[in-house]
Amino acid sequence: MRILYHFWISPACRKVRLALNEKGLKYELVVEKDWERRDGFLALNPASEVPVLEDENGAVLADSQAIVEYLEETYEDVPLLPKDPSLKAEARRLIAWFDRKFQTEVTDNLVEEKLMKRLMRAGTPNTAAIRAGHHNIHYHLDYISYLTERRSWLAGDEFSLADIAAAAQLSAVDYLGDVPWEQHPTAKIWYSRIKSRPTFRPLLADNLPGMPAPKHYADLDF
Amino acid sequence: MRILYHFWISPACRKVRLALNEKGLKYELVVEKDWERRDGFLALNPASEVPVLEDENGAVLADSQAIVEYLEETYEDVPLLPKDPSLKAEARRLIAWFDRKFQTEVTDNLVEEKLMKRLMRAGTPNTAAIRAGHHNIHYHLDYISYLTERRSWLAGDEFSLADIAAAAQLSAVDYLGDVPWEQHPTAKIWYSRIKSRPTFRPLLADNLPGMPAPKHYADLDF
Repeated sequence: MRILYHFWISPACRKVRLALNEKGLKYELVVEKDWERRDGFLALNPASEVPVLEDENGAVLADSQAIVEYLEETYEDVPLLPKDPSLKAEARRLIAWFDRKFQTEVTDNLVEEKLMKRLMRAGTPNTAAIRAGHHNIHYHLDYISYLTERRSWLAGDEFSLADIAAAAQLSAVDYLGDVPWEQHPTAKIWYSRIKSRPTFRPLLADNLPGMPAPKHYADLDF
Repeated sequence: MRILYHFWISPACRKVRLALNEKGLKYELVVEKDWERRDGFLALNPASEVPVLEDENGAVLADSQAIVEYLEETYEDVPLLPKDPSLKAEARRLIAWFDRKFQTEVTDNLVEEKLMKRLMRAGTPNTAAIRAGHHNIHYHLDYISYLTERRSWLAGDEFSLADIAAAAQLSAVDYLGDVPWEQHPTAKIWYSRIKSRPTFRPLLADNLPGMPAPKHYADLDF
C-alpha cells in the first residue's frame, strides 16, 4: 500500500496530495506531527519534515518537489509538467515561487502564526508577522492575475504542478479566511477553476476540531 | 552567448556555476546585486533573485533548481543525476536539504549576517544568529560524514548535484573561515575530493576586495 505521511494544513503535503489525486494514484494518509520528531518518522526522513511518501515498491521519498518529480517520472499517464525543457523550467520557476517565496512571505506569517503556534502550543502569535502576511498576499494574488490574464494556467496552456503548488498554498491560507478574493477577481476565477476539480475535494473536507473552516472554504461558489 | 547573472558568494549561484562547469558549458558571468532590484533584472526574474541563466537559444531561466534540471534535460552528455527515479529522488531530497535546510540553519546565519549585511549596508550582524550558525553547522557536517561513510558520494555511487549543492553552501561559509573542518575529518575528505576537481577552481579564485578569503580557502591541501 502507498502511504503519505502528512499534516493536513501543510501546503507541501497538499501539493503532493493534489498531484497523487490528479494522477489517479491511490494512497493511505497517515497524520504525522513532524515537530514531535518521532523516532520512527526520523528513520524515514532525518529532516523530520512532512510530506514523506512510501511508494508501493517500498521507495521512501522526502521533500515535496522530489516526490512530485518522482511521481512525474514514474507515473506518466497524466503528465503534470510540460514536455519542452524551457516550458518545464518556467513551471519549476513558479513552483519554487510558491513553495518558497509565498510560503515565507505569506503562509509562514499567517498559518504558522495563527494556527500552528496554537496547535503546537508554541507561544503567542506575532502581530507584526500577521500584518506582513496580510500585506504580502496582495502582491502574490496580483501576480496570479497577471499570469492568468496572459495564459490559460499559471505556467502556460496546460494545468500543471505550478497551479497545484499555488493552490496548495492558497488553500491553507483560505482555511483561515485570510485570502482577500473580492479584491482579486481574476485570481479568484483561476482558483475557482481549480477548486471545482474533483481532485481538490478531499482538501475541502479537511477540518480541525475547535477551529472549523469559514463557510466559503469548501463552497465551490465562494 | 550564454549568460549567468550571479552574485559570487551566493550558494545558489555557485551551484549553477558548478553544474555548468561539470557539463563543460561555456558562459559569461554578469554580476547582479539582486537586492538593488534593477528594472532590467526584474524583467528577467520578477522575484529579483540570482541566479538567472540566459541560454544560447534565448531561454531565460530562474531558480537554481529549475536551471540545473533544465541543464540536465538539455545537455545530457555529462549526467549529474542518477537515471533511476528512486535514486534520483534521493539526490533531489539531499539537494533540497542543502538548498533550504543548510541555507536557513547555517548560511543565512553566517554569510548573511557577517558578509551580506556589510555589503548591503543593512545594519549590524545579529550575534545570536551567528552563534546559531556556528552551532548548527556541526550537525550538517556530521550528516555529510554519515552519508559518505556509507556511499562514495552524498547521494550514491556517483558524483551528483547533491554533492554540488552541498559544496556550494560549504564553499560560501568556508570563505568566512567558519567551517570547523578539523573536527569533521570524514566530511573534510569528501570536500577535498570536490575541491580538487578542475570545475571547482573558478570558485576558489573569487575574492572580495577589502574582505579577502582566509589562506586555506583556495588551498587544495587545507
